[in-house]
Amino acid sequence: MTEVRVGILGLGTIGLGVARILIEQQTLMTKRLGKRLRLVAAADRDLDRDFGLDLSGVRLSTDANDVVTADDIDLVVELIGGYEPARSFVVTAIEHGKHVVTANKALIAKHGDDLFVQAAANNVAIGFEAAVAGGIPCLKAMREGVAANNIQSVYGILNGTCNFILTKMENEGANYADVLKEAQALGYAEADPTFDVEGIDTAHKLSILAAMAFGSFIKFDEVFTEGISKISAADIEAVAELGYRIKLLGIAKPHGENAEGIQQIEMRVHPTLVPLATQIAQVSDSYNAVMISGDFVEHTVYIGRGAGERPTASAVVADIMDIARVCKQGQQDGVEYLAPPMGYVAAERKSIATLPIADVESEYYLRLMVQDKPGVIAAVTSILADHQISLEAMQQKERDEVEVVPVIMLTHQTTEGNLQAAMLRITALKAVEDEVLILRKESFDA
Amino acid sequence: MTEVRVGILGLGTIGLGVARILIEQQTLMTKRLGKRLRLVAAADRDLDRDFGLDLSGVRLSTDANDVVTADDIDLVVELIGGYEPARSFVVTAIEHGKHVVTANKALIAKHGDDLFVQAAANNVAIGFEAAVAGGIPCLKAMREGVAANNIQSVYGILNGTCNFILTKMENEGANYADVLKEAQALGYAEADPTFDVEGIDTAHKLSILAAMAFGSFIKFDEVFTEGISKISAADIEAVAELGYRIKLLGIAKPHGENAEGIQQIEMRVHPTLVPLATQIAQVSDSYNAVMISGDFVEHTVYIGRGAGERPTASAVVADIMDIARVCKQGQQDGVEYLAPPMGYVAAERKSIATLPIADVESEYYLRLMVQDKPGVIAAVTSILADHQISLEAMQQKERDEVEVVPVIMLTHQTTEGNLQAAMLRITALKAVEDEVLILRKESFDA
Repeated sequence: MTEVRVGILGLGTIGLGVARILIEQQTLMTKRLGKRLRLVAAADRDLDRDFGLDLSGVRLSTDANDVVTADDIDLVVELIGGYEPARSFVVTAIEHGKHVVTANKALIAKHGDDLFVQAAANNVAIGFEAAVAGGIPCLKAMREGVAANNIQSVYGILNGTCNFILTKMENEGANYADVLKEAQALGYAEADPTFDVEGIDTAHKLSILAAMAFGSFIKFDEVFTEGISKISAADIEAVAELGYRIKLLGIAKPHGENAEGIQQIEMRVHPTLVPLATQIAQVSDSYNAVMISGDFVEHTVYIGRGAGERPTASAVVADIMDIARVCKQGQQDGVEYLAPPMGYVAAERKSIATLPIADVESEYYLRLMVQDKPGVIAAVTSILADHQISLEAMQQKERDEVEVVPVIMLTHQTTEGNLQAAMLRITALKAVEDEVLILRKESFDA
Repeated sequence: MTEVRVGILGLGTIGLGVARILIEQQTLMTKRLGKRLRLVAAADRDLDRDFGLDLSGVRLSTDANDVVTADDIDLVVELIGGYEPARSFVVTAIEHGKHVVTANKALIAKHGDDLFVQAAANNVAIGFEAAVAGGIPCLKAMREGVAANNIQSVYGILNGTCNFILTKMENEGANYADVLKEAQALGYAEADPTFDVEGIDTAHKLSILAAMAFGSFIKFDEVFTEGISKISAADIEAVAELGYRIKLLGIAKPHGENAEGIQQIEMRVHPTLVPLATQIAQVSDSYNAVMISGDFVEHTVYIGRGAGERPTASAVVADIMDIARVCKQGQQDGVEYLAPPMGYVAAERKSIATLPIADVESEYYLRLMVQDKPGVIAAVTSILADHQISLEAMQQKERDEVEVVPVIMLTHQTTEGNLQAAMLRITALKAVEDEVLILRKESFDA
């Protein structure tokens, strides 16, 4: 029986989860795959600890180079994380003719395009299902499941920490800072949560999804990104009364050509009002979801755990099996990689322009703090009207004995440029406080 | 560039949808696949009509044998439906070394196991993603996306007609018969709706999902099957007050070995109470959903259109691309099929016993019509207690001036055998009318 030999870089929780599956579920996988996967080697800086798993048949090393250059390894699993030294080890593995599977979204978002070209030149594959939405096989769905479709939109709840915080804020009427503290105590949020709560992690994942959806290069740096740290319990409550729920969404959609004749896509990450009756609105706690819509399949939604040792390990091993399936032989007989993954024929990728954020159209939720005196609302709405922005709803809560009151407005569709121009004039009004919360609202029918 | 040449059997709405994708999205697919798909031939009994599509480059015939035996076709798409002559054409196609893609769930549920063995012997593949849950790539997810997992349960809303009817009954407080008529008028239900509303279609699909999940043969005949035709608007309302929604679910779960040492699985299709806050409960109208839970990935949910020309065609073409991707060459150079699909290594399938329905455990919703006089409830609950069935909730609506009133009971977990034994005694009570509605309730945490 053909054997595909695996090496792991990094024996953290996910690495050990992958090792556990390869060892404990070997019979099951062999049956499904018709080939045997064998964990041959692993590298980690700290080998002097109890792994909670019998690794006696596995060659262990503190030097990752021992794995990425080994003659008896066909596929390297990179679970070090971050840019370096992960990137260098992956490059070396590819140079040595090894397939690579990684859960590293930062690495793929930043260096993926170069790595794909290098992998194609070396006749090996790179799998990164685990880098987007954890255990959910959404990249496979995008790449293969809806491969017959022109993709019309991608929406994703891609960060479990943010979704956990927003769900808890809503359920308990609690404020952001308090829930964040609780999430940190529970291990759901990092000590420095910036990466998650400011939307950067979501932007990494969205840029990967968008590139796959539209056949473009990965343009993480061009994703418009806002996080959830400015949202208050009062906003969540106000939004609920209007029939919406706030989710941190990654959104990508195709557009027509720009003045230079280059096709454009919009990519943005921000807290978004979604109608309560939609599938996406029902995805709570640390669950992730990806909604992919195509011109034939219409809407499809994929939901599951976006993080965690075991779900992520499940996605890593699915990638290993995917690549193993289309390898005719392990490297012992010369690597022969037979079926390149769909969706990334490297030579067919093209440069697609990112639609300038000023041109992106959206509906808006505005929370203004205004002085409670006659004429203020008239002044604000008159500026909006000047910019052809019409209102869908307005809400002013009565508050006794305060001079500054919140006013909530929902606008109809307008461009971001238009909205920002109007907001500049509105915040210049003496009766309007500086801090305006601008949230965007999306309408979809699934 | 390698070309994979396709022939279609049946130019109904789905067949024309597939032809449309192959013709109109050829550039897109070639880019994603790195190979060209070409629609070479199609057969249909009626060629004398306007197809609404330019088929001038396609060889048309009224005889399917012209397609399944043609030397210049590598892959046959079967969209005739039903058992015969679909089965015979598929058999001939396989004998002639052609891959097969089908949307025919009845064919796969009944003859799939034989066809898989025949296909393996002839070194060709059979794709049937479109046979289960329409456009949703759920078989791919099961087969590949969660391939590293032992599957712990499969739940599916697999029939769009039933889900449409149940949603409309709930939204409008309307009765089954009225909504069915409306669904028929809209084309969402057949003139003879038995196949859909009595759960047979769902059972076909569930038997396929279960076989893939647990590596067993397909045992459609052994699926316990109940439909939705006995559910009233009053039941839907009563259930909602208790925090549940009724969905027609297909359910499959693994169990331990039976007395003969053979592993067992339970397979059942019936209207099911699901908690309102779950993902499955939010899947409305004609949408389908499949929830697959595994020992590593936890819960994953896949949602999309379960039927319709375009979503189904999307799934058919995804299968074509899947098979084309792993074909090294078209038949012109000798068929060489390189990577068998995962999850069906035919030789590795084993016979798994179906758990007898009497041994299946569930919680129950019971609607009894009882005479409104003292002692009746005591008699009923005393029989339940005799059978160790305890109640989670009971509800008796006051109805003025009627002699027979509905009593709703929710039980805790018990076996079907136990419940049925108790019901025999309860319906034998003079004060209890014969017609008792028994619904089952499932608890899951996603």
